[in-house]
Amino acid sequence: LMGQMMQMPLLISSLITHAARHHGDTEIVSKRVEGDVHRCTWVDVELRARKLAQALARLGCEAGDRVGTLAWNGYRHLEIYYASSGSGLVCHTVNPRLFPEQIAWIVNDAEDRVLCFDLTFLPLVEKLAAQLPTVRHFVAMTDRAHMPAQTSVPNLLCFEELVEAENGDYRWPSFDENTASSICYTSGTTGNPKGAVYSHRSSLLHAMAAALPDGMALAARDTVLPVVPMFHVNAWGLPYASALTGCRVVFPGPHLDGKSLYELFEAERVSFSAGVPTVWLGLLTYVKQNGLKFSTFKRTVIGGSACPPAMLKTLEDDYGVEVIHAWGMTEMSPLGTLARLKSKHDALPKEAQRHLQEKQGKVVFGVDMAIVGDDGGMQPWDGKSSGDLLVRGPWVIDRYFKQTASPLHDGWFPTGDVATIDADGYMQITDRSKDVIKSGGEWISSIELENIAMAHPGVHEAAVVAAFHPKWDERPLLVVVPKPGVELTRAQLLAHYEGRIAKWQIPDDVVFVAEIPHTATGKIQKMRLREQLKDHKLPTT
Amino acid sequence: LMGQMMQMPLLISSLITHAARHHGDTEIVSKRVEGDVHRCTWVDVELRARKLAQALARLGCEAGDRVGTLAWNGYRHLEIYYASSGSGLVCHTVNPRLFPEQIAWIVNDAEDRVLCFDLTFLPLVEKLAAQLPTVRHFVAMTDRAHMPAQTSVPNLLCFEELVEAENGDYRWPSFDENTASSICYTSGTTGNPKGAVYSHRSSLLHAMAAALPDGMALAARDTVLPVVPMFHVNAWGLPYASALTGCRVVFPGPHLDGKSLYELFEAERVSFSAGVPTVWLGLLTYVKQNGLKFSTFKRTVIGGSACPPAMLKTLEDDYGVEVIHAWGMTEMSPLGTLARLKSKHDALPKEAQRHLQEKQGKVVFGVDMAIVGDDGGMQPWDGKSSGDLLVRGPWVIDRYFKQTASPLHDGWFPTGDVATIDADGYMQITDRSKDVIKSGGEWISSIELENIAMAHPGVHEAAVVAAFHPKWDERPLLVVVPKPGVELTRAQLLAHYEGRIAKWQIPDDVVFVAEIPHTATGKIQKMRLREQLKDHKLPTT
Ligand SMILES: Nc1ncnc2c1ncn2[C@@H]1O[C@H](COP(=O)(O)O)[C@@H](O)[C@H]1O
Repeated sequence: LMGQMMQMPLLISSLITHAARHHGDTEIVSKRVEGDVHRCTWVDVELRARKLAQALARLGCEAGDRVGTLAWNGYRHLEIYYASSGSGLVCHTVNPRLFPEQIAWIVNDAEDRVLCFDLTFLPLVEKLAAQLPTVRHFVAMTDRAHMPAQTSVPNLLCFEELVEAENGDYRWPSFDENTASSICYTSGTTGNPKGAVYSHRSSLLHAMAAALPDGMALAARDTVLPVVPMFHVNAWGLPYASALTGCRVVFPGPHLDGKSLYELFEAERVSFSAGVPTVWLGLLTYVKQNGLKFSTFKRTVIGGSACPPAMLKTLEDDYGVEVIHAWGMTEMSPLGTLARLKSKHDALPKEAQRHLQEKQGKVVFGVDMAIVGDDGGMQPWDGKSSGDLLVRGPWVIDRYFKQTASPLHDGWFPTGDVATIDADGYMQITDRSKDVIKSGGEWISSIELENIAMAHPGVHEAAVVAAFHPKWDERPLLVVVPKPGVELTRAQLLAHYEGRIAKWQIPDDVVFVAEIPHTATGKIQKMRLREQLKDHKLPTT
Repeated sequence: LMGQMMQMPLLISSLITHAARHHGDTEIVSKRVEGDVHRCTWVDVELRARKLAQALARLGCEAGDRVGTLAWNGYRHLEIYYASSGSGLVCHTVNPRLFPEQIAWIVNDAEDRVLCFDLTFLPLVEKLAAQLPTVRHFVAMTDRAHMPAQTSVPNLLCFEELVEAENGDYRWPSFDENTASSICYTSGTTGNPKGAVYSHRSSLLHAMAAALPDGMALAARDTVLPVVPMFHVNAWGLPYASALTGCRVVFPGPHLDGKSLYELFEAERVSFSAGVPTVWLGLLTYVKQNGLKFSTFKRTVIGGSACPPAMLKTLEDDYGVEVIHAWGMTEMSPLGTLARLKSKHDALPKEAQRHLQEKQGKVVFGVDMAIVGDDGGMQPWDGKSSGDLLVRGPWVIDRYFKQTASPLHDGWFPTGDVATIDADGYMQITDRSKDVIKSGGEWISSIELENIAMAHPGVHEAAVVAAFHPKWDERPLLVVVPKPGVELTRAQLLAHYEGRIAKWQIPDDVVFVAEIPHTATGKIQKMRLREQLKDHKLPTT
C-alpha cells in the first residue's frame, strides 16, 4: 500500500518561495564591498533571483551547468545561490583565499560556465581569466557605477545590468529532488581538491536538521549573522536554513575583524551567529579590550575546528552568549554533531554540563556515526576508546565529483578524524588521523593539549604537533602565540599542564611564534607547522 | 548533473533506531490502564518493537496490512506504532470515543488484519468482534496476569506473550519511502469517515517540521507529555518527533482530568505538552481551585479548536506557560500553522504580540496556504478579506483511502475552514464553511463571538450557532454554560459585547445550558447544537 500524500519534490526553490511568500518583508542586510550597508527583503531576493535565473539562461546556461562564485557574504551572493540552484544550475562557491593556481584548478575541474565575483577579486580574476577555458562569462557583482573603467577580463558583465534587463516573468522549474544543487571543493592535505556535489534533497533535509532546536535552533524571531563564509560549505547551510525559517539575515561582507563584527552585531541587533574559533578570538579580544558587552547576541555555533573550552567559558560566563559547539565537514553538508544536553543532564552541576558542551556532541537526526579501531572493528562507546570516526546519512557524500573510486568503507564515510564516543552518544574528536601524536605506541590528543594551553591567560593561540624523539618516536611540541604585551616562559606553560593531564602526555618543549599558519578556511595548518619545525631538537632527547 | 549524496529512504524505522542508538537510556514513562506507572527507555521500545514486528509477521501480516489499535497513550501503543510501520505494515489508530457502529465501519473500511486494544475497551471489542470479518487476530495490550478470565472475543491473544515469545533478531527492512505508514480516519460532519493514508516520507518530513523552533520546538532536553491522544492524527506527530529529537516522553494513559494531569506534570517534571482547549480548561480549573503552580511546565501547543484568548492569557500571565496556538487537520498530518512571532515583532508591546499569538498563525516550512472567495479567486492577504482556506504540501493528502475522486481543487486541498490571512502571513480561522453565520449576505464569525463570551468572567464555555431569522436569514445565537455558582443574565452577556464588536454582529439571544455537546475529539458539535436549538425563536423576529 502506498501513501496517498501530495508528491512534492524537495527543491531549493521552495525555500526562497516560502521565504518570499511568508516572510516577505523580513530584512536581508548586507555590508557591501562598495562600502555601504544595503537593505532588501526576502521578496526582493526572490524576485531578483528569478531575474538572475532568466539572465543566466540568456547567457546560455543549461541544466546542470556550474555557476562559479568568488564572493563574500552578501545579498548578491545569496541571489546567485537561489538563481542557480533554483533554475536547475549548480552553484559552485569557490574559496577566494586559496592560492590562485588552486582556484584555477578547481574552476577548471568543475567546468564553471559563468564566474561571478566581488570587485575585491578583480585583480585575481584578471590574473586567472586566461587559464579558465570553460568560463564563457565573467560577471562583476556590482552596479554600472562601480564597474572597472578598464580591465583585462574579457567581456566583463555587470551583475546589476544583467538583473535589471529581465522582467522576472519566470516560474521556478520542478525536477528530480536528487538533482545536483551545488558543489563545494575540499582541499585535502594530499592530492588535488575534491568536489562534494550536494543535491536539492540533501540540502533541504540538511537545512531542516540544521534549524532544529538541537541543531542551530533557528526561528523567525532570529537575526542571523553568518560569519562563516558562503564559500565554506554553503555557510554551513545558513542561507538555506534562514529562508526555511524566515530569519532576518545580516551579511558581514569582507570585514571580519573584531571591531567590524562587533559594530554590526550591535547596530543590527544580531541574535545568532556561526563561525570558526579564530573569528571569535578576534571578536573577544576586541570586546575585552574595549570593555564592551553584547546587547542582543544570544547564541553562536562554533565549529570548523575544536572550540577551545576557555573560549566557551568566556562567551557564556562573561558575555552571556550560549555556545553551541558543532562538528561537521564539507563531505557532510556540513552538519554532523552538536554539543546539546539531554533531559537527564538538567540536574547536573554547571561544571559537568560544561564538560559535555566542550565535546563535539551528539548527532542530529539523519546522521549516524561509529568509531573503528586499526583492525576495522567497532570500538565501544565508553568515552575512552578512540578510533577512526565513520559517518553516514542522507546529506553525506556517496562519492567525490568525477571520481569513480568510492571513498566509503562498507557504506560508511571515513571522516579522517579520530574520536571517542561516550555511552550517551557524545562524540569527542581527539585528533585528525594525520595529527595524532603516537608516543611509545600510545596516542596523545593534540587537541586536548591545545585546549589546555588556550586556557592559560597569557596564550593567544596554541598548536601542538609531533616532534621526533629517538626513544618515543614522537613527543608533543607546543607552539604558542602569546597575547600582545604578555611575557611567557616555557616553564610557566609546562607547569600549567600539571594536574590537568597525565604526566607522560605533557609536551616536551615549547616554541614561541608570532603567528600560527592557517588554512584558507581558518584551520591550523598542522602539516606546514610540522614542516617548519621539523628540525626542532627536543631538550629531552 | 545528479547530486552525489548517500541515498537513504526516509523511513519511520530510522526514527526509532536513532532514538535507541543516541538516546538509549532516555525514559518513556507511562501511566498504565493496569493502574501503575511503567518506566522503560528508547532502547527497550526499539527492542520490543522489533520483537513485536516478528510476532506480527508470525501472525501472518504481510507488507501493507493494517494493524488497528483502540488504545490510550502508552508505551505499548508506541511499540505498535514502530513495529507496524517499521516493518512495512500500516498502523491504524482508531478513535475509541466514536460510536461503536462508526468504529466497526472504520475497521472494516481499513480492513484491519489485527486489532490491538487496551483492556478498557474489552467490552467494546466484545460487542463488535463479530462484525469485524477482516480482523484475524485480537490482541489485548496487557500481560498474562491481567488477561480476562473469560471473554467472548475469539482467540484473544496477549500482547506481552506475543512479544516475549520472540528473540528480537530482526532487521528493520528498507523500502520505498512513499510506502504507507499509517492511516487515520476523520469524521466529517456529513457522510462516512474518510481515511488519510500517510507515508513514511510524509511522516518524517512532518516530524522534522513539527520539531522546529517555530513548530513545537522539541529538543532532547524536553520531557514531553502528549495529552492529545495517539488515535488523534498520531498525537499530532509527537511519537515520531519525540524519537527524532530524543525527548523524554510521559504518557498519561486514560486519565486526562485536571487532577491526574497536574500530578503527572509535577511528578515527572514535564516541560512540554500538547492538546485541545477542552483539556486545558479542565487542568486550569483544577489548578486555580487548588491554588497550585507548575514547577517545570514551560510551554504547550493548543490546537484542534481555536484557543480562547482568555485561556492563552491565563496560561501565560498567571502560570508562566508559553502557549503555541496551532492549527491543522487530519488531512495535514496534522500540522499547518503555528502562531509564532517574527523578528520584527520583538519591539511590539505585549498586547500586540498577544493579538498575533491568538491567531492560528503562520505556516511551517513545507505547507503553503491560500484563501479563495466564492468565485474561486484568490483573496488578498490583508487580515480582513476572508475566504475558503486551501493548503498544499508534502504532508497534505492527495486523496482519501479507497476514493477515486480527488478532493483537490487545482492541486490545493480545501480545508473547509474559512480564514483571513494578514500581510505577514498570519492566518486566522474565522469559521468552518458549514458553520459560517451569514447575516444579510455578510459573514459573522461564530468563533469571534465565542471568544468574547469566553472572556466574560462568569462564562465556563460558550458556543455560537446560526439561528433562523426571517429577515436576515441567519443570526447568531449564543449558548452558554455558566461557571459553577455564577448567576448570569441574557442582558449582562449581550451588554458584554458592546464596544467589542460591530453592533450588527452581536448575538440576538442567549440560551443557558448545563453542557455543550462535544465530539469525541473535544470539538464543539455545532451540527448537534444547531439541531438541538433548531426551534429556538429569536426575540428579534
Ligand atoms: N487552532 C484551531 N483553531 C480553529 N479551528 C481549528 C484549530 N485547529 C483545528 N481546527 C479545526 O479542526 C479541523 C481539523 O479537525 P481534525 O481533522 O479533526 O483535526 C480544522 O479544519 C479546523 O476546523
